[in-house]
Amino acid sequence: MTMNKRVLLKSRPKGWVSEADFEFSEAPVPEPSEGQVLVRNHWLSLDPYMRGRMNDTKSYAAKAELGEVMLGGTVGEVLETRDPSLKKGDFVVGALGWQQYGVAPAKSFRVIDTKAAPAQAYLGAIGMPGVTAWIGLLTIGEPKPGETVVVSAASGAVGSVVGQIAKLKGAHAVGIAGGPAKCAYVVEELKFDACVDYKSPSFVQDLEAATPKGIDVYFENVGGAVLEAVSRRFNFFARMPLCGLVSQYNEVNPEGVRNLHAFLANRVKLQGFIVSDRLDLWPQALKDLGSWVSSGKIKYRESIAQGLENAPKALIGMLKGENFGKQLVKLV
Amino acid sequence: MTMNKRVLLKSRPKGWVSEADFEFSEAPVPEPSEGQVLVRNHWLSLDPYMRGRMNDTKSYAAKAELGEVMLGGTVGEVLETRDPSLKKGDFVVGALGWQQYGVAPAKSFRVIDTKAAPAQAYLGAIGMPGVTAWIGLLTIGEPKPGETVVVSAASGAVGSVVGQIAKLKGAHAVGIAGGPAKCAYVVEELKFDACVDYKSPSFVQDLEAATPKGIDVYFENVGGAVLEAVSRRFNFFARMPLCGLVSQYNEVNPEGVRNLHAFLANRVKLQGFIVSDRLDLWPQALKDLGSWVSSGKIKYRESIAQGLENAPKALIGMLKGENFGKQLVKLV
Repeated sequence: MTMNKRVLLKSRPKGWVSEADFEFSEAPVPEPSEGQVLVRNHWLSLDPYMRGRMNDTKSYAAKAELGEVMLGGTVGEVLETRDPSLKKGDFVVGALGWQQYGVAPAKSFRVIDTKAAPAQAYLGAIGMPGVTAWIGLLTIGEPKPGETVVVSAASGAVGSVVGQIAKLKGAHAVGIAGGPAKCAYVVEELKFDACVDYKSPSFVQDLEAATPKGIDVYFENVGGAVLEAVSRRFNFFARMPLCGLVSQYNEVNPEGVRNLHAFLANRVKLQGFIVSDRLDLWPQALKDLGSWVSSGKIKYRESIAQGLENAPKALIGMLKGENFGKQLVKLV
Repeated sequence: MTMNKRVLLKSRPKGWVSEADFEFSEAPVPEPSEGQVLVRNHWLSLDPYMRGRMNDTKSYAAKAELGEVMLGGTVGEVLETRDPSLKKGDFVVGALGWQQYGVAPAKSFRVIDTKAAPAQAYLGAIGMPGVTAWIGLLTIGEPKPGETVVVSAASGAVGSVVGQIAKLKGAHAVGIAGGPAKCAYVVEELKFDACVDYKSPSFVQDLEAATPKGIDVYFENVGGAVLEAVSRRFNFFARMPLCGLVSQYNEVNPEGVRNLHAFLANRVKLQGFIVSDRLDLWPQALKDLGSWVSSGKIKYRESIAQGLENAPKALIGMLKGENFGKQLVKLV
C-alpha cells in the first residue's frame, strides 16, 4: 500500500511559530469518491496568510484545525478521476494542504497549462499571489500614470507583481525590501525605479529620497515601523490597499498605526482586502497575469524547499523574511 | 472712532492650548474696498479643527498665523457694502475669525435666512458641522437600513447630526459621549438607539452590549482608546469615515490604531475626509439639513460663551469635551 506523508497542525503558536507546532504523520493514500479526483501534489505553496489560520480567532476564512493536515495551496497531477471534468494526467491547482496526495471534488480544482508556464508559477505570479497584487493595486490603489506607488515585501510573491503592474500602468514604482541583495534584484531584474532597505539605519531618509514627490499608493504587506515611515510621506488622497501585516503576525502586542493623523490630514483611504472576496475578478486577473508572464513583462523569483519534511522550517523562514521571492516546497 | 476688538494668535501651543497662547487687541474698524463688505459679527463658531490650524505643520488648509486674528467661522450682519450682490442688513455666514467686525470680498459670504432658523444654526446643524456629518456619513459611511452606525462625540455639533441622519436612513444609531448627562440627551432628545459613556469603567462592555450585531459604520471624531474599542466590534466590510481625532490633538505622542489587524481581517475601509474637498455636495447637503432642521427631524443643542473675551477659555473647554452641543461665542 502506498503511504501518504502528511504534516499536521499539532499546536497553536503563541508568538513565533516553531517546528514543534507541526507533526509528521503517514496515512494510506485516500480513494476518490464520486465527483472527486485523487491528485499527487508536485508543489506546495507557502504564504504569509497561513500564520493567521494557525490562530483560534474569528477570521475571514476557515482556520487550520488541530490534528488535521495543515492547509495550503498545491499544484499536482490527477492520478485517478471520478468526474468527467478532469482526466488522468491533468495538472491542477487546488488546496490540498501539506501532504503528498489528496482527494477533493473535481470542481475545487483549476486545470493549468504547464506548457505556457512552469506548474509552480500557478501558485505564484499566475496564481493567488499574483491575483492578490492585481486586485489590491488596481481596484483599491488605482495608480495613475506618474504617481508614486510604494510596496513593501517588494521581492516577495505579491510585492514583486505589484511593482511590475504599477510600472505597466505608467506609475513610478518604489519597493521596500530587507537587505541589499533583495533591493538590487528589485531594481535590476524587476525594473522598479528604486528600492529601499528597511533594515538599513538610514531607512527613513532613504525612503524620503526615493519618493521625492511623496507617496500616492502604498500597498501594505508588512505593517509596523515600515508603515510608520511611509505614512509620513503620504500625498493628499493617497490610497493604501491593506493586504498583509507580516511583521506583526507573530507579535503578541502589535504596533499598529501611531500616525493616524496623517490619514486624516491627507484624506488617505486605507482598505483591507482579501483576494477571495473578488472571485468575479479572478478570470480577468489570471488572463492579464498569464499574458504578462508569458511575454516577460512580469518576472519572478522562487525559493524552493526540498521535500515536505522541510516545510515547517521554510514557513518560519518566510515569516522572518528569509525567503527570496515566492516560497515553494517541491514534493516530487 | 469705533474700535474692533480682536483675538490674535500669540504663540503655537505644544500639547494643550492655554489662554496665554492668545492676545487681545484693538484696532479701528476696517473699511471695505471695492467688491468687499463690512460685517458686524454676531456669532463666532468654535470647532475642533482649530487646534490643528494652530500648529506650524503641513495641512490641508492655511494655518493660523502668529500675530494675526485667530481664524474661525462667523455669522453677522452686513453694515456697509461695496458689492451689488449683498445689501446692508443681510445676514451672512463667513470666516472673519475671532473679532467683532471684519471686511472680506462679498463672494466669500453666503446669505442666510434667519426666519427659517436662528442665525447661529448656520454655524452648526445647517452649516459646516452639519455638512461634515452629511458628507462623511453618506459618501463614505454609506449606511444601509438595519446596519449599525456608531459615532463618537455624539452630542457634539457633528456627531449629533451623524446619528440623526443615520436614523433617517433606517440604520441603528449608537452614540459615544462623555458622561451620563450627554448620553441621556443623545438617547432621549436626539433619539439614538443607544449611547455609551466612554468615561465609564465598563465602557468596553457597554459598547459591546449596545452593538449586539457588531459595527458597520464608525464615524470617527475622537481617536485613542475609543477607536481601539470600536475596532474590536467591526463587521466584515465596515466603513470608517475619519473626520477628527480630538482626543489626540493635544497629545505629543498620539496613540493611533494598535488593532490594524481588525481592518485587514474584516476588510474595513478607513477614509480621511475634509468637508471642503466636496464643495460640489454642499448645496444638496444644506438643502437636506435645512429641511430636516425646519421640520424638527434634526435637533441640536448649543453651548454659548458670552463675549470675545471668553473665546479662548471656551475653545480649551471644547477640546476637553466640556461643551454640550455646538460651541458658540455670542458677540452681540
